[in-house]
Amino acid sequence: MAHYIGRNREARQTYGFDDVALVPGSLTIDPEDTDTSMDLGGIKLKIPFLASAMDGVVNVDFAVAMNKLGGLAVLNLDGINSRYENPQEAVEKLVNCKPEESTEIFQKIYKEPIKPHLIAKRVEEIKKHKVPCAVSCIPQNAGKFGPIARDAGADIFFVQSTVISVRYESSKQKSLDLYKFVKEMKIPVVLGNCVTYRASLELIETGAAGLLIGVGPGAACTSRGVLGIGVPQVSATVDCAAARDVYFKKTGRYVPIITDGGMITGGDVCKAIASGSDAVMIGSPFAKAKEAPGRGYHWGMATPHANLPRGTRVHVGTTGSIEEILFGPARTDDGTQNLVGALKTSMGALGAHNIKEMQMVPIIIAPSIKTEGKLLQKAQVVGMGKQK
Amino acid sequence: MAHYIGRNREARQTYGFDDVALVPGSLTIDPEDTDTSMDLGGIKLKIPFLASAMDGVVNVDFAVAMNKLGGLAVLNLDGINSRYENPQEAVEKLVNCKPEESTEIFQKIYKEPIKPHLIAKRVEEIKKHKVPCAVSCIPQNAGKFGPIARDAGADIFFVQSTVISVRYESSKQKSLDLYKFVKEMKIPVVLGNCVTYRASLELIETGAAGLLIGVGPGAACTSRGVLGIGVPQVSATVDCAAARDVYFKKTGRYVPIITDGGMITGGDVCKAIASGSDAVMIGSPFAKAKEAPGRGYHWGMATPHANLPRGTRVHVGTTGSIEEILFGPARTDDGTQNLVGALKTSMGALGAHNIKEMQMVPIIIAPSIKTEGKLLQKAQVVGMGKQK
Amino acid sequence: MAHYIGRNREARQTYGFDDVALVPGSLTIDPEDTDTSMDLGGIKLKIPFLASAMDGVVNVDFAVAMNKLGGLAVLNLDGINSRYENPQEAVEKLVNCKPEESTEIFQKIYKEPIKPHLIAKRVEEIKKHKVPCAVSCIPQNAGKFGPIARDAGADIFFVQSTVISVRYESSKQKSLDLYKFVKEMKIPVVLGNCVTYRASLELIETGAAGLLIGVGPGAACTSRGVLGIGVPQVSATVDCAAARDVYFKKTGRYVPIITDGGMITGGDVCKAIASGSDAVMIGSPFAKAKEAPGRGYHWGMATPHANLPRGTRVHVGTTGSIEEILFGPARTDDGTQNLVGALKTSMGALGAHNIKEMQMVPIIIAPSIKTEGKLLQKAQVVGMGKQK
Amino acid sequence: MAHYIGRNREARQTYGFDDVALVPGSLTIDPEDTDTSMDLGGIKLKIPFLASAMDGVVNVDFAVAMNKLGGLAVLNLDGINSRYENPQEAVEKLVNCKPEESTEIFQKIYKEPIKPHLIAKRVEEIKKHKVPCAVSCIPQNAGKFGPIARDAGADIFFVQSTVISVRYESSKQKSLDLYKFVKEMKIPVVLGNCVTYRASLELIETGAAGLLIGVGPGAACTSRGVLGIGVPQVSATVDCAAARDVYFKKTGRYVPIITDGGMITGGDVCKAIASGSDAVMIGSPFAKAKEAPGRGYHWGMATPHANLPRGTRVHVGTTGSIEEILFGPARTDDGTQNLVGALKTSMGALGAHNIKEMQMVPIIIAPSIKTEGKLLQKAQVVGMGKQK
Repeated sequence: MAHYIGRNREARQTYGFDDVALVPGSLTIDPEDTDTSMDLGGIKLKIPFLASAMDGVVNVDFAVAMNKLGGLAVLNLDGINSRYENPQEAVEKLVNCKPEESTEIFQKIYKEPIKPHLIAKRVEEIKKHKVPCAVSCIPQNAGKFGPIARDAGADIFFVQSTVISVRYESSKQKSLDLYKFVKEMKIPVVLGNCVTYRASLELIETGAAGLLIGVGPGAACTSRGVLGIGVPQVSATVDCAAARDVYFKKTGRYVPIITDGGMITGGDVCKAIASGSDAVMIGSPFAKAKEAPGRGYHWGMATPHANLPRGTRVHVGTTGSIEEILFGPARTDDGTQNLVGALKTSMGALGAHNIKEMQMVPIIIAPSIKTEGKLLQKAQVVGMGKQK
Repeated sequence: MAHYIGRNREARQTYGFDDVALVPGSLTIDPEDTDTSMDLGGIKLKIPFLASAMDGVVNVDFAVAMNKLGGLAVLNLDGINSRYENPQEAVEKLVNCKPEESTEIFQKIYKEPIKPHLIAKRVEEIKKHKVPCAVSCIPQNAGKFGPIARDAGADIFFVQSTVISVRYESSKQKSLDLYKFVKEMKIPVVLGNCVTYRASLELIETGAAGLLIGVGPGAACTSRGVLGIGVPQVSATVDCAAARDVYFKKTGRYVPIITDGGMITGGDVCKAIASGSDAVMIGSPFAKAKEAPGRGYHWGMATPHANLPRGTRVHVGTTGSIEEILFGPARTDDGTQNLVGALKTSMGALGAHNIKEMQMVPIIIAPSIKTEGKLLQKAQVVGMGKQK
Repeated sequence: MAHYIGRNREARQTYGFDDVALVPGSLTIDPEDTDTSMDLGGIKLKIPFLASAMDGVVNVDFAVAMNKLGGLAVLNLDGINSRYENPQEAVEKLVNCKPEESTEIFQKIYKEPIKPHLIAKRVEEIKKHKVPCAVSCIPQNAGKFGPIARDAGADIFFVQSTVISVRYESSKQKSLDLYKFVKEMKIPVVLGNCVTYRASLELIETGAAGLLIGVGPGAACTSRGVLGIGVPQVSATVDCAAARDVYFKKTGRYVPIITDGGMITGGDVCKAIASGSDAVMIGSPFAKAKEAPGRGYHWGMATPHANLPRGTRVHVGTTGSIEEILFGPARTDDGTQNLVGALKTSMGALGAHNIKEMQMVPIIIAPSIKTEGKLLQKAQVVGMGKQK
Repeated sequence: MAHYIGRNREARQTYGFDDVALVPGSLTIDPEDTDTSMDLGGIKLKIPFLASAMDGVVNVDFAVAMNKLGGLAVLNLDGINSRYENPQEAVEKLVNCKPEESTEIFQKIYKEPIKPHLIAKRVEEIKKHKVPCAVSCIPQNAGKFGPIARDAGADIFFVQSTVISVRYESSKQKSLDLYKFVKEMKIPVVLGNCVTYRASLELIETGAAGLLIGVGPGAACTSRGVLGIGVPQVSATVDCAAARDVYFKKTGRYVPIITDGGMITGGDVCKAIASGSDAVMIGSPFAKAKEAPGRGYHWGMATPHANLPRGTRVHVGTTGSIEEILFGPARTDDGTQNLVGALKTSMGALGAHNIKEMQMVPIIIAPSIKTEGKLLQKAQVVGMGKQK
């Protein structure tokens, strides 16, 4: 519904996870009979969970462990893993530095140049374990890093920026031609992030194998605070899912969308899929895994930005293994563990046999007033920007 | 009113207790002249209050005391009372264990198998005092426990699950045929929980004597957080009351609905009935009674869940007798005591002679911004899930 | 605008002071040129401020001081002033008792019977100073106390109950015939409290000289919490003002309405009048006056209720004289002092020459998110119920 | 959309910065290619930032430094700079006094009469550095101070009051004829503050060179609390921008509007311009500059008010130079530094080449729930009133 925010100026009301809830109906299903699998560019994922391309979350070991479990961890090619032979050594410096010197140390650590041979090395290290390999970089680096990763054996490539669009204007640098890049990469390419019907339709038309949905998703997000930009994830996901569905009707090609950011609990994950998403990408919950390189810390790729740093190093603690976080048993009752169990239980109670049915369960508007503690927790998680 | 949460996707706005208020009009009545009685499956209740089937709230003694006062306490047949000869001994272990070991101890205590002969014994212990006897179990146990309880003399049987529906699919277990069960039980059967017009209509059509309304009712509820599922109680009650009324018009059979969960204060109880409910089921206020077995503690049936535990043992303290909680005098001014007095005072101020008139008083939307303390208190109460 | 809160059930959205703001336009006026006077039953008030009939706020001395300043303090005839020869002695006991014994002591102090000769005495004490004398009691006492007060010289009589209505049903006590009472009193009678168009129209038709508007006004109000009853003051005032205006058009008799309760700041007072009120009745701000008998404490008339006590003794402190609270200079910047100065400054900025123009300034919906501290302060003030 | 707040009374819903967000689309631009310049009365500003005419923020040195950087600082002619030969001496007294004596000392310091020769002196001190000179006073002083400032070389004159209107009524003082004043000043005159379409159209028609938009902008603003008056800035800006555009279509004269007040972060600045503003006026962020005379403190012109003081001295600390605050590098991630960088980054992500395109980017309604800390910070900033 459009509202007037002033004379002759309309604005739509948009909705985030905390604004909605899912409604059980006349059919319930045994959770064990629900099917959570999905297909991303030909890679069959048993569970619709992707781990964010953040240096505190995904390294080679994490990717191997996660992908064996049926999800997909994405390794960041712009970060520490392609700058240092021994990335864990660099991570330790970031994790152990004092708060007052952290900005300086972050900027220093990330000044080390990226080494192309390390890109190939990381891909090979993952592929050695016979699991799918997913890697990611920003548009400015894609033309160079993409072919290296592909030739080393990567199965799928992510090009990610705070906001990506088919049309990019710059008087100084040549912009990446997404049509050409997708075509020449030959392996599937996922593009992100976007939030509108039109932008996602244009991105799908490049031949992309998937889209990441989410810009400034949270009410307390850094992008919202610093740039004023952001769309709550329920509305963003519904809109981009509509683009996916329209394109599918026209062409028969189904391009999955992945809601990325703003989710804390199993409930948030369920709502993202109920809003039309095919999978979710999350960082913070996995930063708590004992396999995560950050050992209980994580940070966004905008943290070391030289001129406009956004987000800080956040301590989330270590609470269990990836397997426990995904499949339980949960040790807490706050919805942050056994995420797959929560999704399957929710699907059962909602009568959804699979992800595609879950995308169509009824949603109501039912605001939840967050206590300050919950809000702050959320703020930390969604405040992790991406480097542009 | 339906809103668009995104392209081609509508969602209704829903309302909970904190979103509404009741409006006094042109007639007022002496509170002592108001009639709060209702009929549930042939059992005449003087006051429309049911006590939740929770192990910290209802045991045999509590049920006898409460039912003598004109309300109806429901004994849980899936819990401690049918697992242990001496249930209070088990309760003491739960109540006295340290927080860090509570999950383990809860899981252990609830691993003890249920003994059918104890089901019969508990029913007989209640019936010995010439009061109505109400017992409850989950759908999976109903086929077995129902006949035992009935044959032992139970007057009314509750089948309760987080979400109940006429249609349940499972590849492993045979689902309970609700039509057949209700018919063969012969004593009245109450089914719950449900939240939608259609689901409640289908449940009423099984021949049920009553319905429990409420799934994930609270803004801070565990079901909302973990599963994303929930409907605020005002809207859920209004919708299910409409199903009851339509069925009554068609058939002449009046099937009362009972709002279950999310209520803390007398004001919440008044709003539940004003939304169309015939009675309320509450747990937390009664856990504070000196007759409650939990001695100031209570917990939900999902607390000991092996893989996805929800809710924890909550300390609410002991504030008075059941009689004081129901009929006063209130020792606090927060609306949690003298609940019947509050209901009658409200009915008087609103000019409602009886429950059926109270179901039709005017409601307005008048959000109350809760302070954090109140929110947290509410969170504790509504965070008590039910075992599925 | 009506919304559906569920199937076939509509509810209007209502608004309180924190939900709205006033909009300056194309004309501004020198605040000193604004006229705040109003007429209540023939009594000309220079400022549209009434002090609530609460024992911690108004005694004889307070009434004399306030009424000299051009406002109108109302003395409660159901309280301490008509129970004790030396009321201040009783007040001291209430003010000095320990919190844990306060309910008991309140109930004891208010058990002392009312002495009719003290009613006359208090009225005469006020009239001795040649100021208007306003007194108040509940409907049950009005038939007896009214004539005594009138014969002793009272100028105006208030009949006040949480909710008043022309029609009251009781099997035990004879209800007050408001038509007859108003007619036989001969001095002007103000009736309250009410909140709807129809109820206020019916009350006006009794011949009342004014109405008090407000039932459970605040989001954190006791009536809201305990009884579920309440209407936010902006909507209540707009509705009752419409009844006043319709009656005036039909009959030519103008019956002023007085918004009572829920106001903390000068801004709230301005919004009450902008919503259509002719005057405001406030308690808490005056409890802070050094002339107030409660010496920084105040309490509602439901605090000593035997069975359902509502509200407690609240400490607000002493901040200045009545004159400073009304006319400044303000010593704080929170809007609780120099209330008349704030009203005149607001009227000037809004281009309203007098109260009747102020009743028509533009209002917008512009929610203010309160910090918890402010909320709690508000909760204390509006939590003061009235004895029914 | 208009809503009924009660019988026959409509009110529009209005929106502030925290209620909305900006939506990226199908085009992105290199931030360095965006153009933030604007023209105010013939003065070309490279960046659309004005510094508020507050004594803790702008003195001669600050104005010189800021205006060299391409923005415009406005010197207050009603304050310390025109009352004292050595204004910094007076500022030191305000900054160093104890909280409990601050009201008294503020009132004393501001009792010192204004010296016309100091007005000329300050203007000349600024002009000596070959930068634009902007000065400000209240309407009551404009007739006298305007010509002095102009003759001393001021380039642009601001007439500012809490609410300004073409029509002002006073029985005691002659009101300023804005038409005549603007015409006779010959240098450009900016008028403020206003918030409605009609008021701004009338002010533009006086020949004004610009308007300041904003009255009681914040949810926690002093004007809101004390006077009940205020319009959230997004709606106020949209409405006044419509007046500007209608006038431009009719006459071909483009009169820029400047959103003044209620902004804390770069995100707020971006939203103000996206709402249709040509520039922003801010105080608090610049009070943190090491060039600010208040050395980390600031206060509004209503703070020393004799009878109705509003706002207090606020400590914001000193965080960097004006250049760092405007152009970075940011040392914090809360959006309060590198404001120009944030604006350009936002414009790039939104595909806006210049301010006029930025005025038309899509806005959505996407409420952000503020934590209490953020709210309080905001309260301090927007609580700074202006002297009337």
